[in-house]
Amino acid sequence: MDKIRIGIVGYGNIGKAVEKAIGQNADMEIAAILTRRPPELIKPKTQGLQVDLIDNALKYRDQIDVAVLCSGSAKDLPEQGPAMAAIFNTVDSYDTHARIPQYFDELDLVSRNAGKTAVISTGWDPGLFSLLRVIEESVLPVGSAYTFWGPGVSQGHSDAVRQLEGVQDARQYTIPIKAAVEKVRQGGEPQLPTREKHLRDAYVVAEEGADREKIAKDIQSMPNYFADYETKVIFISQAEMDKDHAEMPHGGFVMRNGKTAEGYRHVIEFSLKLESNPAFTASVLLAYARAAFRMNREGNIGAKTVFDIPAAYLSMRTGAELRREML
Amino acid sequence: MDKIRIGIVGYGNIGKAVEKAIGQNADMEIAAILTRRPPELIKPKTQGLQVDLIDNALKYRDQIDVAVLCSGSAKDLPEQGPAMAAIFNTVDSYDTHARIPQYFDELDLVSRNAGKTAVISTGWDPGLFSLLRVIEESVLPVGSAYTFWGPGVSQGHSDAVRQLEGVQDARQYTIPIKAAVEKVRQGGEPQLPTREKHLRDAYVVAEEGADREKIAKDIQSMPNYFADYETKVIFISQAEMDKDHAEMPHGGFVMRNGKTAEGYRHVIEFSLKLESNPAFTASVLLAYARAAFRMNREGNIGAKTVFDIPAAYLSMRTGAELRREML
Repeated sequence: MDKIRIGIVGYGNIGKAVEKAIGQNADMEIAAILTRRPPELIKPKTQGLQVDLIDNALKYRDQIDVAVLCSGSAKDLPEQGPAMAAIFNTVDSYDTHARIPQYFDELDLVSRNAGKTAVISTGWDPGLFSLLRVIEESVLPVGSAYTFWGPGVSQGHSDAVRQLEGVQDARQYTIPIKAAVEKVRQGGEPQLPTREKHLRDAYVVAEEGADREKIAKDIQSMPNYFADYETKVIFISQAEMDKDHAEMPHGGFVMRNGKTAEGYRHVIEFSLKLESNPAFTASVLLAYARAAFRMNREGNIGAKTVFDIPAAYLSMRTGAELRREML
Repeated sequence: MDKIRIGIVGYGNIGKAVEKAIGQNADMEIAAILTRRPPELIKPKTQGLQVDLIDNALKYRDQIDVAVLCSGSAKDLPEQGPAMAAIFNTVDSYDTHARIPQYFDELDLVSRNAGKTAVISTGWDPGLFSLLRVIEESVLPVGSAYTFWGPGVSQGHSDAVRQLEGVQDARQYTIPIKAAVEKVRQGGEPQLPTREKHLRDAYVVAEEGADREKIAKDIQSMPNYFADYETKVIFISQAEMDKDHAEMPHGGFVMRNGKTAEGYRHVIEFSLKLESNPAFTASVLLAYARAAFRMNREGNIGAKTVFDIPAAYLSMRTGAELRREML
């Protein structure tokens, strides 16, 4: 069988991880990297791989079965998503929650016109966590839903700290409060205010001579990001930052407590513990790239989310194998 | 919108639970109960509900949108499954693993000929656990899979003990060994022999004058069922059995340890803690009944498993709502 030819659009953390992850998927091969940067600056791991400008994407129309969009949601995907979905089947991890419906509609229109399939907003949250929220609610319609994130590095919160005066570098860890997770596991549908669900630890490298007390106060009082949480600020050296905080672990829990009609209580829990957020995200993106390819081959075009995709489309196994070995 | 009219076929533990669970699904209503027993012996909870013989099923062809098959897998479903799938959209919890491929093929043929949709082998295992096994493997293709069952009552093992000489009543609990679950959570892909994964506790009411030592030995040496496990046998009175062991709790864990290409380790875990196995199974069956109804309306006929069904079809929410609120 011909392999699914994967194009990588955007060669940052996730793009690099996608390139490596292709080797774990026997039915896939890498076709090209498309980038906004001067292509000669990109040094892919794959020998002899084509690297070109995104603006030349049209040239790769017949060489790429699915383009995995690995750029950021804030500025890049709103532009690149529609542009790429007009040329290729695509999969992305668009995560600006408030704009997802609009992004879906845009990609749906563009991809339908082009006869392509565009899987949006996958990865683990949005992505697997969203999928589990829907499955859990569907099988236990009367109940309460809970999502905990971490322990792990929050990119957005780390960036917010880095913007502060006197901060040279920062890394923020979101930590689910064990007692809260345990309470949910007990099944009684507890009410959990924000402060009781997560802690935030900020590791900060201060600039020389900076006012550390002020930095700590600035962080702890930052609205939306930290003010509603118990936030610890820990000052470290740049050497410690580089040595101890280079990895990007993450994870979390999607849980549901509910009652069936007779009053019986049930607890459903899904959790991830990831040593590397981009590596796992890349791995999920490729499973959904397989789905985009297969759905498109069957004429199932337009924008799709994790809610629209049967698990069989994610798997390398055939339907008969799945029924025999996995059911 | 018209409600989905549910027919219940077989009015045992699961059938009764399905009847109650319909009230938690605002888009469903109950249409009829079909039974092998004399209909006048059935006392449904719903006032004035039609109860009739399965043999008269054809009369209900236009009154039932989805028939939920609640009979046993050993003897009833192999016969009732194909018979009902020729008349109605169906959903069942067929769980004789070795015969699933054949059962799928039979129902696929029959339901296609009738223009119906037949969802087979759902509930939680087979069902949600199977679904999670496939999702976990697809997003983490290099790794090891683990399923733990319990703590909970195993019907099959309880029945096996009840067959023994001198046993008046029995209830068997399967208990996952915490240290093993914890080892998997640590992520190192441990090798776990059968004896290190589960314990078995058998609560037994002995007949008067029976040889308890012999009963215990008979249980502990029973091949396939108990010989490979550490099995505790606890003798109790019938009064204690009726008082303390009337419920049917169950649950378990579907876990995967894996490595992405760079060597990063990841742990995925899905777990259920159920106060009542039949109540939860019934709730899952109804979510898949919704899917069967919708797929059939779209012309997607034939036999389906949990692997073939997008999560959106399980949910009472619209696609737009799901994207806005759950993604």
